[in-house]
Amino acid sequence: MSDKHARLERLTSMLRRRGVILPAFEIHGGVAGLFDFGPVGGRLRRRLNNSWLEHWASHGDIVEIDSPTITPEAVLIASGHVGEFNDFMSECNACGGAFRSDHLAEGHHPNPDVLSQEELDQILHNNSIACPTCGGGDWKAARPMNLMFDTRIGAMKGGRAAYMRPETAQGMFMLFPALYRHFRNRLPFGAVQTGKGYRNEISPRQGMIRLREFNMAELEYFIDPEVEPAHDFSKWESIQFNLIPDPEFNQPMSIDPGSASAENIIRHPTVAWFMARTWDFLVSVGINPEMIRFRQHEGTEMAHYASDCWDAEIHGSYGWIECVGIAHRGCYDLAAHESATGDGNLRAWRPYSEPRTVDKTVLAGKGSIIGPAFRDQAGAVNDALQSIDEMPTGFPFELTLESGDSVTIEADMVEEKRIQTTEHGEWFLPHVVEPAFGIDRILWHIIDHSYVETEKGGEPYTVLRLPASIAAIDIAILPLMEKDGMGEVASHIHHQICAAPNLASYYDGSGSIGRRYARADEIGVPWAVTIDHESLQNGSVTIRRRDDGEQIRIQPDELVDALVSGAVTSLF
Amino acid sequence: MSDKHARLERLTSMLRRRGVILPAFEIHGGVAGLFDFGPVGGRLRRRLNNSWLEHWASHGDIVEIDSPTITPEAVLIASGHVGEFNDFMSECNACGGAFRSDHLAEGHHPNPDVLSQEELDQILHNNSIACPTCGGGDWKAARPMNLMFDTRIGAMKGGRAAYMRPETAQGMFMLFPALYRHFRNRLPFGAVQTGKGYRNEISPRQGMIRLREFNMAELEYFIDPEVEPAHDFSKWESIQFNLIPDPEFNQPMSIDPGSASAENIIRHPTVAWFMARTWDFLVSVGINPEMIRFRQHEGTEMAHYASDCWDAEIHGSYGWIECVGIAHRGCYDLAAHESATGDGNLRAWRPYSEPRTVDKTVLAGKGSIIGPAFRDQAGAVNDALQSIDEMPTGFPFELTLESGDSVTIEADMVEEKRIQTTEHGEWFLPHVVEPAFGIDRILWHIIDHSYVETEKGGEPYTVLRLPASIAAIDIAILPLMEKDGMGEVASHIHHQICAAPNLASYYDGSGSIGRRYARADEIGVPWAVTIDHESLQNGSVTIRRRDDGEQIRIQPDELVDALVSGAVTSLF
Repeated sequence: MSDKHARLERLTSMLRRRGVILPAFEIHGGVAGLFDFGPVGGRLRRRLNNSWLEHWASHGDIVEIDSPTITPEAVLIASGHVGEFNDFMSECNACGGAFRSDHLAEGHHPNPDVLSQEELDQILHNNSIACPTCGGGDWKAARPMNLMFDTRIGAMKGGRAAYMRPETAQGMFMLFPALYRHFRNRLPFGAVQTGKGYRNEISPRQGMIRLREFNMAELEYFIDPEVEPAHDFSKWESIQFNLIPDPEFNQPMSIDPGSASAENIIRHPTVAWFMARTWDFLVSVGINPEMIRFRQHEGTEMAHYASDCWDAEIHGSYGWIECVGIAHRGCYDLAAHESATGDGNLRAWRPYSEPRTVDKTVLAGKGSIIGPAFRDQAGAVNDALQSIDEMPTGFPFELTLESGDSVTIEADMVEEKRIQTTEHGEWFLPHVVEPAFGIDRILWHIIDHSYVETEKGGEPYTVLRLPASIAAIDIAILPLMEKDGMGEVASHIHHQICAAPNLASYYDGSGSIGRRYARADEIGVPWAVTIDHESLQNGSVTIRRRDDGEQIRIQPDELVDALVSGAVTSLF
Repeated sequence: MSDKHARLERLTSMLRRRGVILPAFEIHGGVAGLFDFGPVGGRLRRRLNNSWLEHWASHGDIVEIDSPTITPEAVLIASGHVGEFNDFMSECNACGGAFRSDHLAEGHHPNPDVLSQEELDQILHNNSIACPTCGGGDWKAARPMNLMFDTRIGAMKGGRAAYMRPETAQGMFMLFPALYRHFRNRLPFGAVQTGKGYRNEISPRQGMIRLREFNMAELEYFIDPEVEPAHDFSKWESIQFNLIPDPEFNQPMSIDPGSASAENIIRHPTVAWFMARTWDFLVSVGINPEMIRFRQHEGTEMAHYASDCWDAEIHGSYGWIECVGIAHRGCYDLAAHESATGDGNLRAWRPYSEPRTVDKTVLAGKGSIIGPAFRDQAGAVNDALQSIDEMPTGFPFELTLESGDSVTIEADMVEEKRIQTTEHGEWFLPHVVEPAFGIDRILWHIIDHSYVETEKGGEPYTVLRLPASIAAIDIAILPLMEKDGMGEVASHIHHQICAAPNLASYYDGSGSIGRRYARADEIGVPWAVTIDHESLQNGSVTIRRRDDGEQIRIQPDELVDALVSGAVTSLF
């Protein structure tokens, strides 16, 4: 086993043993691709999630929404997922085993997940790829398999087909009318949602990288495509991002995001700006900046909606892994839902700088015919004729009145007229820039980058150097012994800290102090407090810093204040 | 329409118009029982959820976990949900329409959801209940319908049956071994989980009360049934709870929780204690304490696991609604999973106060037969014979060795021996007390209790008196006009507040100031800041308090500090 693999095994086993991340349903045999966040991982995950929400809420024009995970089929037909959210699967003619075709093709193509069905079949055939189950080499033609979990809403004949959402994004599109109202009809604005996404992988692997149920965090930012965005890139002027553009256009390069935008390497300034803010976020939660790169999607690999898309990839135990996708989706989604539903509320209003006079052909009712034909509805028929947007292609045609009633209009009832009207603006479909984050993959890499293996007194020793802002436990409370009242003092401090908002402490009363420090370091607790004999005399306790083991004495009240205000570091 | 119904309609329409709670997927026709939390509701929901997590984390022995929503069938067979999580459904013979039998029986029995199939059929028949769809009155016999959403994990022949979880509780039971390790093998301790739960209602109704996908928050508290719990009820000594005990034993009463526990009206002190802490939580997030009562489940109504169960019911627009269930589950769940899986890790160790000498019957291998029969496995066979817990009921029997191999033991290979051993303790199944909260129902009642309809200048005026700790928006920023630089000053303050952790402000620049105050009051924004001409001269702004309209002038920095520290009230 390589050193790298051995380290990964030790790390995974620590995460499991200490209750950070564990295979789910293990006592019932487990399920590939499903994980639990345990007593330590639960709060770690929530703090990362909350950091993400805070990061975007700070922009002032981004709000949080929350929509159901169960999604009726009609929504996902409109969004394209029913047709397009597929992986190719190859089935062995000998044993019936089914596998992802691109996994079978690995090693025979640099990037097999961009290949077409024909290309995949050819690689399997030309390289005599063996079936992992039975060793056979006779494959059925690859076929697309939809990756959504399906279910049914309701009972019996009244039931409706539905899926567990493959992304959280659709919730934001559904709520566009409410968002537009909330922001008083002014673009740009954004909405975020965090929560579960689902993908019924054919054969999950790679631990936290490829899950069947995962934590997503997506932002949809709605813009007017005719307004030139004004983003200030000066903050990142001296920061070189690693870019891997589509090789058809550019070579890999190190460049600051403002220049990459100015030189049109990143095609839309708002995409560049979200790449920069994504970089900020990743670094703030503990990702090593050296291990981040942005890779532009090539034409064939781009999702069905994206007109430009960059992945933030993070390097760790599994190589370079896509953790964030930042896509310019154009008006794909809103247009798709508008066309599927005929709903007119997915547009925004763009006032003209000056009113425009427009020549228009309209149908005017002939009073002498309309009157007798429709009697007391005649006025409503005239109103409806005037508000026709598109001229009918022939006669007779059905005209819907404001009341919802429908009437038949014959050719002799109307005449065409040319008129001039004044228009003050127009309704248009906003464009969308979407940064989509895989929280589990980011969490995995934070842990991977924080995990340090070292030695102490000749023994292996590990520390998880998590940033204090997301550590699962803020402080460990360690009575030197559980006697002479030390346990009671420790327990009192422990409860004092737990009662303070947004703080979690952990009481550990058994084993040697060195062993308990080691246990706290292993899961990344930034601070540890020891209650000893001196504490019983003058009340002071020892606080120890995880990252260098330095210790000072302090009064417990002072300690709690410093923890609440986040100023513990300044005590040293 | 009654006044009560008209108020409910106005409230529901406000929630929808202002983006608090909206029917989900509305542009695609909507789905009964699925709701969105919109631009205002999203943060409101999260703050309530976080308040709940903080409330329990403050106890110091309760940690957060997070487990998948997709649950393999085996887990839910063991938990009893596959067999028992049903509603009775009646089908009309004339039109095929399907309805919940207890809904059809309403008005003909005080509590139809406790009835058996026979009783329901009889009520439908004796009262000639008409089909709501076709008016027919000929019903098929009621039959139980499972309420879980089902799906499949994986593809093709390798796929496994699964359900969307009906509760979050199973995740905590699955993680018992990790929790026990985390708490260094010491009871009592608890774990919480918040997240989605699913229930495929036959015919959802009553808005937020009966959802198909809902926000749950559950706590499993593991205790040793042989340790007498010591809870301090003095804090609630002078608070009278409204209790509706099982009528078989007690009359409704007002009583403090300590006395209710001492008098055995609440059967277990830990149940009484969680009822008291539940009361604390509900009142802290804005539930009117007059509108809370606790109702004990009657025998027939109790869930399949509960040995004592109390519902916290809240009164609002829909009458008394169950919002929290506090159940003593005994060791039902851990025992069920142990028996389904044979996993021995769901137990806790109880040391005896003194070691006990125990007489035991064991099987000892006869060396002269075991040796030749099993050769180099003979030692392993002897070890396995000695560690048998239960004597076999007959011969021959299969014996599993530590290696996993299995051997057949004949009667002549062994002899029974009486021996004495010293035991230092025993492994036992912990008991569980579970408070389970319906976050959506609680949120609904917070809104319902906060919603005040009044008048201003002869016009209807509404205020949502939400507690500042969970209000969706902390402060509204209102430039008097968007000119002379007032808009810029306002925008600067807005961004300053949004950048502070855990604060959200809302910028509203258009319409009269009175109208904008009204908009802020309607969704419960506790504070509003106005930037006027004086602000341009001396920097000061006006801050207005929602609940009485009182205003003072203040410098923006002072305001932000007061918001961050939560001390705005003290400014007045």
